[in-house]
Amino acid sequence: MMAPSMATMLCVVTTDAAVAPSLLRRLLQRAAARTFNRVSVDGDMSTNDSVFALASGASGVSIPRGGQTAAAFGRLLDAVAGRLARLLVKDGEGATRVLEIRVRGARTDAQAQACARQVAFSPLVKSMLAGGDPNVGRIAAAAGASGARFNPSRLRIWIGKREVVSRGVVRARAQAAARPLLNRPAATVLIDLGAGQGTGAMVTCDLTEDYVRINASYST
Amino acid sequence: MMAPSMATMLCVVTTDAAVAPSLLRRLLQRAAARTFNRVSVDGDMSTNDSVFALASGASGVSIPRGGQTAAAFGRLLDAVAGRLARLLVKDGEGATRVLEIRVRGARTDAQAQACARQVAFSPLVKSMLAGGDPNVGRIAAAAGASGARFNPSRLRIWIGKREVVSRGVVRARAQAAARPLLNRPAATVLIDLGAGQGTGAMVTCDLTEDYVRINASYST
Repeated sequence: MMAPSMATMLCVVTTDAAVAPSLLRRLLQRAAARTFNRVSVDGDMSTNDSVFALASGASGVSIPRGGQTAAAFGRLLDAVAGRLARLLVKDGEGATRVLEIRVRGARTDAQAQACARQVAFSPLVKSMLAGGDPNVGRIAAAAGASGARFNPSRLRIWIGKREVVSRGVVRARAQAAARPLLNRPAATVLIDLGAGQGTGAMVTCDLTEDYVRINASYST
Repeated sequence: MMAPSMATMLCVVTTDAAVAPSLLRRLLQRAAARTFNRVSVDGDMSTNDSVFALASGASGVSIPRGGQTAAAFGRLLDAVAGRLARLLVKDGEGATRVLEIRVRGARTDAQAQACARQVAFSPLVKSMLAGGDPNVGRIAAAAGASGARFNPSRLRIWIGKREVVSRGVVRARAQAAARPLLNRPAATVLIDLGAGQGTGAMVTCDLTEDYVRINASYST
């Protein structure tokens, strides 16, 4: 859940452009798939999490159904949704930092996304992030448990710009050097499975003692 | 993971009976499916988690492939594996109590098991357990997010022997009375989805501040 006092996310994006409902729905579904459906605070979902897009048409500017204008409008919607989704993770209970996980080189996009999700949901990865400790074995173990098929000897992992796992082997010096990169308010991990062209991504936050304190003490 | 110092579970069950490898393998697989594969500390898996069964035959007693003796031997193996699996959860990092989750009334056993897993993996449920607070909305939300199909108005949930949700409605007095039942070292939750005959079960532990402390500070 995003915030106990709300117990849900209700997101409304508004525009003063005139957009046909079918086009706006399609663009919003695409944006949500790439943003809101790729974030996790703790893996728990509220049954009420919702995102709405409202177009008033007050500006008198109309977005045609196809072509470059619709594509540009879609990119703006992606950007707004992406920013809101990231803020939502940043605001997670007890969170002190945000981690962006990107996966590439999977056999399929679905396998890449499964890998990104498994890493993003892993309490071991998330508590490692709280401690700012680049324990890359946990990232590799979560990738391995995700069901994505890959050869471990081709696995590569970066923390920030540091390649900490190369051909399945931990590079100890790079791992030590990656510590400050993981201690940033916004950290990144890139996983290359070396098995294909599939890509995926998730944004998550650290699992801190405050998360437990907040959720253990907040009474019904 | 079960214990950071080992980073894995290596379980060996021994018997001095003579048991054919194919029979022992079949019985062990069944036992593991019902026990080790139904526990979770934090949802993370070690790639090395393994269970072995070794039969020395030293007693001179032979277990035939079929019939009541093999069935009785299988039940004993289930019991040993079940006890070890439970001890393993009890020994989870920072754990102060164990929660047994049983699900019945699902459309299929697979849906019941998916429901039990979702509840067992939920950080919100697990931190609620740490606080000993019977916040049954979290159990219902995890059940709803599991993909198991059911009508919420038929949902029933028990904590210990207290029915805290009846026909989808929280019974506030029973919920308050369930608090001491959740504060035990071994607590139970029963979920009846009211949709069929499928059953499933999981054993998990609470998510405490100590879990985060242990896993955030233990360096590579």
